Amino acid sequence: MRYLNEDFLLTTPAAREMFAAANAQPIFDWHCHLPPREIYENAPAQDIAQLWLGADHYKWRAMRSCGVPEEKITGNASGKEKFTAFASCMPKLAGNPLHHWAHLELQRYFSRFAVLDSSSAEETWTACNKQISNGGFTPHELIIKSNVCAVVTTDDPADSLEYHAALAKQNLPFKVLPAYRPDKALYLDQAGFLPWLAQLEQAVGQPIKSFAALCAALLERVAFFARHGCRASDHGLPYVPYADSTPDELERIFAARLAGEIPTPLQLEQHQTALMQVLVAEYAARGWAMELHMSPMRANNTRMLRQLGPDTGFDSIGDWPVAQPLSRFLDSMDVQGKLPRTILFNLNPRDNYILGTMLGNFQSDEIPGKMQFGPAWWFLDSIDGMREQAKALGNLGALGTFIGMTTDSRSFLSYPRHEYFRRIFCGLVGEWVEQGLFPYDKTALAKLAEDVAFGNAKNYFGLE
Amino acid sequence: MRYLNEDFLLTTPAAREMFAAANAQPIFDWHCHLPPREIYENAPAQDIAQLWLGADHYKWRAMRSCGVPEEKITGNASGKEKFTAFASCMPKLAGNPLHHWAHLELQRYFSRFAVLDSSSAEETWTACNKQISNGGFTPHELIIKSNVCAVVTTDDPADSLEYHAALAKQNLPFKVLPAYRPDKALYLDQAGFLPWLAQLEQAVGQPIKSFAALCAALLERVAFFARHGCRASDHGLPYVPYADSTPDELERIFAARLAGEIPTPLQLEQHQTALMQVLVAEYAARGWAMELHMSPMRANNTRMLRQLGPDTGFDSIGDWPVAQPLSRFLDSMDVQGKLPRTILFNLNPRDNYILGTMLGNFQSDEIPGKMQFGPAWWFLDSIDGMREQAKALGNLGALGTFIGMTTDSRSFLSYPRHEYFRRIFCGLVGEWVEQGLFPYDKTALAKLAEDVAFGNAKNYFGLE
Amino acid sequence: MRYLNEDFLLTTPAAREMFAAANAQPIFDWHCHLPPREIYENAPAQDIAQLWLGADHYKWRAMRSCGVPEEKITGNASGKEKFTAFASCMPKLAGNPLHHWAHLELQRYFSRFAVLDSSSAEETWTACNKQISNGGFTPHELIIKSNVCAVVTTDDPADSLEYHAALAKQNLPFKVLPAYRPDKALYLDQAGFLPWLAQLEQAVGQPIKSFAALCAALLERVAFFARHGCRASDHGLPYVPYADSTPDELERIFAARLAGEIPTPLQLEQHQTALMQVLVAEYAARGWAMELHMSPMRANNTRMLRQLGPDTGFDSIGDWPVAQPLSRFLDSMDVQGKLPRTILFNLNPRDNYILGTMLGNFQSDEIPGKMQFGPAWWFLDSIDGMREQAKALGNLGALGTFIGMTTDSRSFLSYPRHEYFRRIFCGLVGEWVEQGLFPYDKTALAKLAEDVAFGNAKNYFGLE
Repeated sequence: MRYLNEDFLLTTPAAREMFAAANAQPIFDWHCHLPPREIYENAPAQDIAQLWLGADHYKWRAMRSCGVPEEKITGNASGKEKFTAFASCMPKLAGNPLHHWAHLELQRYFSRFAVLDSSSAEETWTACNKQISNGGFTPHELIIKSNVCAVVTTDDPADSLEYHAALAKQNLPFKVLPAYRPDKALYLDQAGFLPWLAQLEQAVGQPIKSFAALCAALLERVAFFARHGCRASDHGLPYVPYADSTPDELERIFAARLAGEIPTPLQLEQHQTALMQVLVAEYAARGWAMELHMSPMRANNTRMLRQLGPDTGFDSIGDWPVAQPLSRFLDSMDVQGKLPRTILFNLNPRDNYILGTMLGNFQSDEIPGKMQFGPAWWFLDSIDGMREQAKALGNLGALGTFIGMTTDSRSFLSYPRHEYFRRIFCGLVGEWVEQGLFPYDKTALAKLAEDVAFGNAKNYFGLE
Repeated sequence: MRYLNEDFLLTTPAAREMFAAANAQPIFDWHCHLPPREIYENAPAQDIAQLWLGADHYKWRAMRSCGVPEEKITGNASGKEKFTAFASCMPKLAGNPLHHWAHLELQRYFSRFAVLDSSSAEETWTACNKQISNGGFTPHELIIKSNVCAVVTTDDPADSLEYHAALAKQNLPFKVLPAYRPDKALYLDQAGFLPWLAQLEQAVGQPIKSFAALCAALLERVAFFARHGCRASDHGLPYVPYADSTPDELERIFAARLAGEIPTPLQLEQHQTALMQVLVAEYAARGWAMELHMSPMRANNTRMLRQLGPDTGFDSIGDWPVAQPLSRFLDSMDVQGKLPRTILFNLNPRDNYILGTMLGNFQSDEIPGKMQFGPAWWFLDSIDGMREQAKALGNLGALGTFIGMTTDSRSFLSYPRHEYFRRIFCGLVGEWVEQGLFPYDKTALAKLAEDVAFGNAKNYFGLE
Repeated sequence: MRYLNEDFLLTTPAAREMFAAANAQPIFDWHCHLPPREIYENAPAQDIAQLWLGADHYKWRAMRSCGVPEEKITGNASGKEKFTAFASCMPKLAGNPLHHWAHLELQRYFSRFAVLDSSSAEETWTACNKQISNGGFTPHELIIKSNVCAVVTTDDPADSLEYHAALAKQNLPFKVLPAYRPDKALYLDQAGFLPWLAQLEQAVGQPIKSFAALCAALLERVAFFARHGCRASDHGLPYVPYADSTPDELERIFAARLAGEIPTPLQLEQHQTALMQVLVAEYAARGWAMELHMSPMRANNTRMLRQLGPDTGFDSIGDWPVAQPLSRFLDSMDVQGKLPRTILFNLNPRDNYILGTMLGNFQSDEIPGKMQFGPAWWFLDSIDGMREQAKALGNLGALGTFIGMTTDSRSFLSYPRHEYFRRIFCGLVGEWVEQGLFPYDKTALAKLAEDVAFGNAKNYFGLE
């Protein structure tokens, strides 16, 4: 079968019919890492090397796995050298979603259907760059061409949101909304905490000398974000902690930190638990959704951290126990009636069934699927990862309420990952239909596909 | 392919032949939660809402996931409203075994083959209830119609077993046997321990003022259960603990508990380990089988626990380490020659290979498959869950010794789950045959299917 | 389909073409447990019972699972009785790789294609033994017949390597190389430590009275092994520990052990971490590869350990957390520029994605795939285990750099497991091609198959 042909992943009539319905939907990319400034500045792409290799640590990592020298990955080699090195890795990437992503991007944005490898690198380089120089490759153009109706960025509470504000005034055919990610407030133990705190003090125009003041400042920023259209928070955590404390303890821990003392692991969990409880109650009150991204183990390579900084492809999957503290944390909010819409993202596939069953403990009639199992993410953003997530959710919950895909990406070319997800999802349900394991009701199947592709997320986040 | 047609899950000739053999076997439901009193009283079903939604927390949970208000789940809404709400959830339950179970029950007990959803709810409601009112829906009739030769209930040591005794006198074409589940004796830390102890004192007609007296009372109840035909014990545990202790420590822990003191986690494990060792030696001496149900994390939602009590759909899967303490516990019995037939039930699918290899450490020539990997259970009672359990057992042990399915259910309509299991099992082995991975020997395959469907369990529990 | 026919596991044209290329490659069995003395002595096999049941704890374990008495497994029963008992288990082993291995060995070494069971046992016994008595079944003949170009044994640092030296002089058409496995130096807590230390003292001709002296002795043995062609070390660990210590602490721990004191768990981890760091730096300096075999939980059955000793089929899979200490250990070497080529072997399939992502943290341009995910091993050496390993590696890394299979076996008949692996690997990639998920480029696919079957391992270990 031809590589990535028009029906790939759609092995049944039901799948093809569902995909037709899904693919007619716009894209609501409700969690990504696009820099708002880059969207605002809207500079045209320079070449395919910049688009592909300028900031994509997935590709960097794959190149390192293939033995490419760092010089040709993040170093001083030319764009063409880097692109050629990447192309030469492709035949080694059997089974890797990067192989699919790269070729889907060539197909969808450049109408190029040849296989990329060493032999086709030169021609691909030339042809793509010619198209890029002919125009159509600004952020806005790429977003519009991809049928994206809204993107949600990920922003620090101290951020001014100036680019969101400026973009909102431009009357664009897509929305750019912020999401509130207060990780730096939670990681009290990090060296960056105090410098960040200074930024937050500046943002609120107040000194922050106590835990209570920190909470107040963060809540003020929630209100500020809300005024800029924010409807979601996001948290990156090895696991969701749960440790009780008293107000006095929290103040002592914070005061000690201001004095330069690093908290113990228990103190850190106490700080994080209490701060999360304050914030989460506010999310609930405002009808925001809360995203919890669990189980990454970051920056494992000290040498490369020093050389390149964080988020450069040296992260992996952790194996912390997650079930008990997460349950206690969610319950601590639910029992007060203050549990917001919650999306549990899982990075360790062995925990799929733990999170898939956790959802059911806290559902409510506020909205179908109030508790969501986030789409397969990062290292799981693959056919296997997505199928396993969908099967877990199907077996354990109500798949028809799933809010579906988001790219979680830093790239303006990443939208075909929505197509990829839609194919995988429709392909899976289509297999069930073909096997007599789900009814072949064309209308119901089309609705299911549309809901998961777009409608459920639209309702969940209250997108207007 | 038509939904749940006659060959669903049977994709190969070998599978269909095996299933024909398996399905001719009676059902021995060797672990369930049917209330003995309800079996004895044999009251006819009232309507499909009562049958389906009166006590089934799987369905409640699915309805909550779909955003149905609690009023229409466990609340005061009418049976018809609840049934209609459930029907309206069905299109969202793609991939969920509930979709299959519900339709199999409609097919097998009501000869209804239409798909259930909002549009067919009214007609289904009327037609099913008409059939119910025409008779044939008492517990005895449903059990007999389902070709069930024996059911094993789950009973507290303090239980009088009066309904088992009464049923035994009725000369029914099926047996109702008790199983001994002393969980309340193990959970020394629970608020319910002392009230339960009072019940046990009443059952044995003796005060229980020491750990030794507790052991004596429980052993007396083992003997009492044995006189009522009991051949199995059952234990529900997050993980099987192993902590050494001295007799003095055990007595001090118990005395403190009588005085109202809650044991520490270590003390609880010491109590549980020692009490289990006493009981397990007795099971071995009597030739009983021991069932160990591991890894549930129960009652996660405090608000709903207060409202509805336990076992109402707010449980999920835990992630405790299980391998080391389980190994040490089983070894502590085996080294004394006191390890009974043991069935390890796993709720966290990530532990399938841990338990599947644990079996092999303690097999013996007492019976083929003395150590059993219990069938996929609760959240794993699905096509994926059952296939993964069977594949793990196949890869790691001797699949032909497997004692197969049990419903673990509270419902008199749950027997099609045996058919479901038989289809999955025969379907899986049939695939291997079709792929040239197991010999196509019709006689051997039929025997394998019959053994796993019924014969192995019959031998394992010594069913007469 | 006929059982284990010529195309089994090769369901697509691409798979069959790839397998033709892979299967033309020689076998480099870069990790096994063949006894060098047996290779050297080259005694002809006695009968099929000795070949199959003399030392294979996989088969023993399967027989125990089927209820065979120990007498007919490791006891005094005759070879024929044991063989017949094993044959009678076969129909119960649906889904078990032993079923495939046994029949592949009958096909490839004895040209017997009948299914083995009770009815064919007698004829198989007679026919195989007749062939064996006709010759062709010495270790050398079996290795040569299997197209093996090199085997790497597993050897203790105190070993004299006399048989390796003697074999090297024989000008054989295959190499027999040692691998350095200093487990006994790491397990300071074991009763066998001091007796082993005495052996090491003898090997180096020096007393070893300090931690520093232990390190020096082990490094001297590394040099000795290197002179015998060693290019790899091997470590068997529940998990890779990481615990800091000072030189003084290490000396105190060691001195205490010499005085008979058993280290605490922390002290054991400190000893292991520091000793590993010394050794691993030396491996890096010499360009050796380091194999880390993680997650076995050994000798769970005390009764059988006393009766039969270790490695007799009473091991299972553990569930220790592995991610954090492994990351810190690898980083502690990488940051010094002293991390050697490393192969992570995983015994718990739930950790596949943890290890599969760990690789990417420490790759380099030293060689493509410097960090390797070892092939599915022991309990995972099955179709499911190998497919899951390959899919994890494909999704997370660069499958084309994979060094592929090794038998890890004690049997001279185990080489068809390479064929089995090659079929599984080619079958998997062939499926992707058939589904349009990898390009159908015959040349590139053949190269991928050859690289993974042989070429990558040859380069990785610098086999001449």
